[in-house]
Amino acid sequence: MLEKIKELVFEANKLLPKYGLVTFTWGNVSAYDKETGYMVIKPSGVEYDKLTPDDMIVMDLKGNKLEGKLRPSSDTPTHAEIYKKYPDIGGVVHTHSSYATSWAQAGRDIPLYGTTHADYFYGPIPCTRLLMDEEIKEDYEKNTGKLIIETLKDRDINPIYTPGILCKNHGVFTWGTDEKEAVHNAVVLEEVAKMAYRTEVINRSASPAPDNIRDKHFFRKHGENAYYGQN
Amino acid sequence: MLEKIKELVFEANKLLPKYGLVTFTWGNVSAYDKETGYMVIKPSGVEYDKLTPDDMIVMDLKGNKLEGKLRPSSDTPTHAEIYKKYPDIGGVVHTHSSYATSWAQAGRDIPLYGTTHADYFYGPIPCTRLLMDEEIKEDYEKNTGKLIIETLKDRDINPIYTPGILCKNHGVFTWGTDEKEAVHNAVVLEEVAKMAYRTEVINRSASPAPDNIRDKHFFRKHGENAYYGQN
Amino acid sequence: MLEKIKELVFEANKLLPKYGLVTFTWGNVSAYDKETGYMVIKPSGVEYDKLTPDDMIVMDLKGNKLEGKLRPSSDTPTHAEIYKKYPDIGGVVHTHSSYATSWAQAGRDIPLYGTTHADYFYGPIPCTRLLMDEEIKEDYEKNTGKLIIETLKDRDINPIYTPGILCKNHGVFTWGTDEKEAVHNAVVLEEVAKMAYRTEVINRSASPAPDNIRDKHFFRKHGENAYYGQN
Amino acid sequence: MLEKIKELVFEANKLLPKYGLVTFTWGNVSAYDKETGYMVIKPSGVEYDKLTPDDMIVMDLKGNKLEGKLRPSSDTPTHAEIYKKYPDIGGVVHTHSSYATSWAQAGRDIPLYGTTHADYFYGPIPCTRLLMDEEIKEDYEKNTGKLIIETLKDRDINPIYTPGILCKNHGVFTWGTDEKEAVHNAVVLEEVAKMAYRTEVINRSASPAPDNIRDKHFFRKHGENAYYGQN
Repeated sequence: MLEKIKELVFEANKLLPKYGLVTFTWGNVSAYDKETGYMVIKPSGVEYDKLTPDDMIVMDLKGNKLEGKLRPSSDTPTHAEIYKKYPDIGGVVHTHSSYATSWAQAGRDIPLYGTTHADYFYGPIPCTRLLMDEEIKEDYEKNTGKLIIETLKDRDINPIYTPGILCKNHGVFTWGTDEKEAVHNAVVLEEVAKMAYRTEVINRSASPAPDNIRDKHFFRKHGENAYYGQN
Repeated sequence: MLEKIKELVFEANKLLPKYGLVTFTWGNVSAYDKETGYMVIKPSGVEYDKLTPDDMIVMDLKGNKLEGKLRPSSDTPTHAEIYKKYPDIGGVVHTHSSYATSWAQAGRDIPLYGTTHADYFYGPIPCTRLLMDEEIKEDYEKNTGKLIIETLKDRDINPIYTPGILCKNHGVFTWGTDEKEAVHNAVVLEEVAKMAYRTEVINRSASPAPDNIRDKHFFRKHGENAYYGQN
Repeated sequence: MLEKIKELVFEANKLLPKYGLVTFTWGNVSAYDKETGYMVIKPSGVEYDKLTPDDMIVMDLKGNKLEGKLRPSSDTPTHAEIYKKYPDIGGVVHTHSSYATSWAQAGRDIPLYGTTHADYFYGPIPCTRLLMDEEIKEDYEKNTGKLIIETLKDRDINPIYTPGILCKNHGVFTWGTDEKEAVHNAVVLEEVAKMAYRTEVINRSASPAPDNIRDKHFFRKHGENAYYGQN
Repeated sequence: MLEKIKELVFEANKLLPKYGLVTFTWGNVSAYDKETGYMVIKPSGVEYDKLTPDDMIVMDLKGNKLEGKLRPSSDTPTHAEIYKKYPDIGGVVHTHSSYATSWAQAGRDIPLYGTTHADYFYGPIPCTRLLMDEEIKEDYEKNTGKLIIETLKDRDINPIYTPGILCKNHGVFTWGTDEKEAVHNAVVLEEVAKMAYRTEVINRSASPAPDNIRDKHFFRKHGENAYYGQN
């Protein structure tokens, strides 16, 4: 079932160690299939160099396993919440990549300091609040997904324009139209987190880039007037 | 004697340079064999790419060499103290890995800033006091082991829940149920030390993660209610 | 047309990922051919491992494409402004290399802290002002080139002596007598940016190197009395 | 002439890029032959991957070239001063390695923060004063050597116990009984510089390690009572 998507999700998961985004098994990639309404995700705690496409798990968005010998990633309910809420999202990534997670541990949004950021994220990368006690004790992973949605909504953020978020004291989720774009955004977010860190060390009172530069770069790459890249 | 364990200890030692935890010969791994009561450890000052399984040294816990042509690691008495005190520990690692050693040189515990930490260490990673003059001048390496035990006891830390420690102005020791888990914990401790460093640069007044998040993540991976990974 | 230069520009572009200066497609190299008055540049948004020499684009300095199936880099007008103004420049590089871009985001010149810097750059590496709203909205990339020229002029900087600049909240441009030297200077600028960053962390009130050391090192490598290297 | 030493010096030079201590041609290694009183050194500005053993230059300590087609390293007179003064030194290394050079640019000694440092350097790694104007303008490289010697003498430092120094606003020199040990010390100095940097970020008021720990570790590895390593 969904053999092609399993292959793609397998390949996308292998990109995480390739790009230096994960240590051991600290990350996972999923994809959503619009036709069936199912998602395909990495099994929990399996080392990347032992993964095969056949290990990928097929789940519905209610949490039922439809195919797969192994347990799905423990973060599966977080992925499912995101797919349920945003029909335009086709791939989700979770990592503990080092700089992004340090911002999450520091409990701060990543300011938009330059065009590298604005080329992919139309505004600061938000950091959620802490989960409350009852949200942690029951359905922790599902509530992590709900908090991501709440945070985007409260701040009036379009997830297609800002394809990633920091979960306080935890790690990072990114997404995209498919699993490959979600991984791409995870790489960008880590690079942007690294440069924002260094920017503040160089100038403790650095200002974010102005809106006109943000708009120029974001819309040079996105939307109907984009002229970056090939058609 | 203990040929299988020599092979495993050899392989675990080779993981230290593979994971970037050692420069030159600055580290060592040992394993404890419950059946015989002997430990197997790397020889002192031998370069990793010249090691063979046959170079591994068999010692009893009183410091007698039972097999091996070379001198054992100068840190052998520290390893022995740990095995004598904690029967559940089957592997010990010592390194000068860069971020963890910087915390040790700074003389600070590593605060539990996030879930990456809480997935493996149930609380701050402690830093010992300095050894006293007489502890250094006589039986330095044995007293290092005794100080590790004293520190864990004084702070009421279960070494199975917090499998690593910083030795002030020196380096790091980690442990586990076997030598492979001890190396795994050494990698995690270095990653956690790196992210804690960056967390404080981003936010000088960052707070540790709350206890409920710590509990959730630690017990998601450990104990009878664990649900992370495969059975 | 210009097949030899296409080959050289292709090879110079491949050096950017080799030296760790670019993530994904975040950089480009061009060369200027004095004979024809044309420039050769990388196509926009094409991944480095899929590039071929034949993909390189031939442009005149007015922005007309003379050969090539793909769109040229969106930064092409910036390169063209530099070639139009400075006839001694034969190669231009643009990157978002991490430390240099962090200085650009911080909005600060890189002080000349030592001889590594002075061996290649005869003074601080300048950071431009922000572009004004109308400069961004119309002809953004061309105005970026004009601002580079304005900045060098206003500060009385000889571009041959200081072959690179930071564009505020954006990234870095370097140049040289040919495309290979321009890449070389991009590598140096990133190293110098990294060491300047670390210098200030070690000593918040570090002073720039004195002029006599700067002169000694710069003219040991450049000009008629140079004695570094082979003839 | 001195073919065996040329081979060794060639190999030692190749270790600099292998250990990540140099960018481009920013470093050089020499060895001193006690029998002939000659030194062998890398040619100036030649890329490491184009070097051959035959390119090495044989010099006497007065600055006369005895063999070699190329110009010797421009730092040759600095190496010569060190050999002339200290007969126990058989190898010298110069690099601009990143962390060590950042300390040199910051104009600070590297404090002895831990046992990694004390295993190789018996005290802080000193940073010289600036050269005076007349020292720069005439015989710059020779005066760099003289200043190294002056600094060691003024601070009563035994160069065998502290085999390296920072040259203010410039870079680092290390040495050893032979060229291989000199390279080894260059690697250690860079690691120690990195950890000292991080130590101060973690704790701005960190104290150096006490003398008893320094003595224990240094003399565990050096001198007649050493017991680290194999005989």
